[in-house]
Amino acid sequence: MTQVYINGARDEANVRDHDSLDVSVQELIRAAAEARNNAYCPYSNFAVGAAIRTSDGTIYTGCNIENGAYAASICAERTAAVKALSEGKREFIACAVVAQQEKGFTTPCGVCRQFLSEFAINGKDIPLYAAKPTNLPLRVLCTSVLQLLPNSFSFLNGK
Amino acid sequence: MTQVYINGARDEANVRDHDSLDVSVQELIRAAAEARNNAYCPYSNFAVGAAIRTSDGTIYTGCNIENGAYAASICAERTAAVKALSEGKREFIACAVVAQQEKGFTTPCGVCRQFLSEFAINGKDIPLYAAKPTNLPLRVLCTSVLQLLPNSFSFLNGK
Amino acid sequence: MTQVYINGARDEANVRDHDSLDVSVQELIRAAAEARNNAYCPYSNFAVGAAIRTSDGTIYTGCNIENGAYAASICAERTAAVKALSEGKREFIACAVVAQQEKGFTTPCGVCRQFLSEFAINGKDIPLYAAKPTNLPLRVLCTSVLQLLPNSFSFLNGK
Amino acid sequence: MTQVYINGARDEANVRDHDSLDVSVQELIRAAAEARNNAYCPYSNFAVGAAIRTSDGTIYTGCNIENGAYAASICAERTAAVKALSEGKREFIACAVVAQQEKGFTTPCGVCRQFLSEFAINGKDIPLYAAKPTNLPLRVLCTSVLQLLPNSFSFLNGK
Ligand SMILES: [Zn+2]
Ligand SMILES: [Zn+2]
Ligand SMILES: [Zn+2]
Ligand SMILES: [Zn+2]
Repeated sequence: MTQVYINGARDEANVRDHDSLDVSVQELIRAAAEARNNAYCPYSNFAVGAAIRTSDGTIYTGCNIENGAYAASICAERTAAVKALSEGKREFIACAVVAQQEKGFTTPCGVCRQFLSEFAINGKDIPLYAAKPTNLPLRVLCTSVLQLLPNSFSFLNGK
Repeated sequence: MTQVYINGARDEANVRDHDSLDVSVQELIRAAAEARNNAYCPYSNFAVGAAIRTSDGTIYTGCNIENGAYAASICAERTAAVKALSEGKREFIACAVVAQQEKGFTTPCGVCRQFLSEFAINGKDIPLYAAKPTNLPLRVLCTSVLQLLPNSFSFLNGK
Repeated sequence: MTQVYINGARDEANVRDHDSLDVSVQELIRAAAEARNNAYCPYSNFAVGAAIRTSDGTIYTGCNIENGAYAASICAERTAAVKALSEGKREFIACAVVAQQEKGFTTPCGVCRQFLSEFAINGKDIPLYAAKPTNLPLRVLCTSVLQLLPNSFSFLNGK
Repeated sequence: MTQVYINGARDEANVRDHDSLDVSVQELIRAAAEARNNAYCPYSNFAVGAAIRTSDGTIYTGCNIENGAYAASICAERTAAVKALSEGKREFIACAVVAQQEKGFTTPCGVCRQFLSEFAINGKDIPLYAAKPTNLPLRVLCTSVLQLLPNSFSFLNGK
């Protein structure tokens, strides 16, 4: 298949134009982009924002918080998730991630995929949208937590 | 020195009676105890609550969120911290941790000590209070992030 | 498509009979099964073994090492990987994971997928074999690190 | 007390001259310094080496292995530890860490302190030596895992 590149993103079936997305998704992406401004990333200088909408419609946002001991760093997606979870919200409707890489989209790292997958069980996958904050026309990678973590490991699947 | 045990806690200089603490600290401990109710801990069944007060007086709370892949779990203290940090609050005035162990106090694990120490730099140590939710009379271990992580490693100290 | 279940594993295209695999893969799976005996897993009682073959033919093995603070736990796959890496071996030819779940295969968690993907760059994907130690006839899930972490995030892809 | 600085290290009671240490400790420090050469640290460019001696006299070495997703990084101390543990060695006699910071010593991060403390239970503390590879005369910080993680949290202390 012929691939068209728009702003460094392959224009595949799962990459869509921002304006074609549901307004609730556009709102989530906007929230993630705004949360990105609070990133604490003195080591990588790579700011990431995330937003999660829970089943009651609330949006919880997060940014990456790095640490001098790299292993203790926490990503934007997990920050947003623990905010929701600590408020008792365990049903995630959608997740958005925003960061600026020249090539490709910034998707959740494996740690975050693992963390989020705990709440994507019983057939409740979580749609995930990865976007860049500045490149226009804005393109969005539309995927999901379980698509990003196929054959996922789970104790709940039967230890 | 002769040690007196009260509710399984050594009655040392740094273990004090709850009612003798500043009311702002009592409020912080209460917030941590309440946040503990939202803990997601199906693997350990060990619920922990935490609360952090930032320099503007706001209290941010957290609980532990476990994961089937243990390494992806996030503790109560870090949950509270990333909530504050993602709202742009980086000055932590005090931290409280509440959990129920029969013996001893539940102090932050090394991961959390490392995470919090990043924001205890430049001589700004963070007082830390560890309490049990139910044992009465309530006793509180009064310590600090830097006391719990002596000789801490930091890139900021000169790489 | 009609799915046949053998020992709790879906008999799909990527699930193969152990005896049909290359002998070098069978040797790797055997090494992983043996390493599993050293697992330190007092919290989950879920032992996992792993083995990685590097480009010079050497096999490095690992098991899971848990910690009272769950977040500090290290999985079998990462144990095997750091052993190889700390000996200067960065080219991974294949990886095997062995654990006993009734249903399904135990695949690497997201943290391990992320860790391994760092060394699966530049088109060098790492074949990954997940097997159960005891169920006979032995079936093996044949996949790869990049298949398990699609659309992976990487600074090296262009920050 | 008057503090003398030698090569950026405070000359305190627990900082000693390398040549005054037991030869078995000198050997451990040398092993850590050598292991440091295999560090994979493209993100921080900060190489660390570690070595652990187990009760049978064997030395296991490690270096830091970083990851594009910082949280998935593994330090030198944990690398050395999982090597020993996966070989069935759970009794650690001593640990050495070597890195080059201008000021101060590079001590284990909180994650590693937590990881190591799991094997420092029942009164078996683990002596820990932090040294710089090049500054001469070589000075060594002599401490221990439990000194670096006071009031440590443990399920094993009574959940
Ligand atoms: Zn992440
Ligand atoms: Zn913790
Ligand atoms: Zn893993
Ligand atoms: Zn460390």
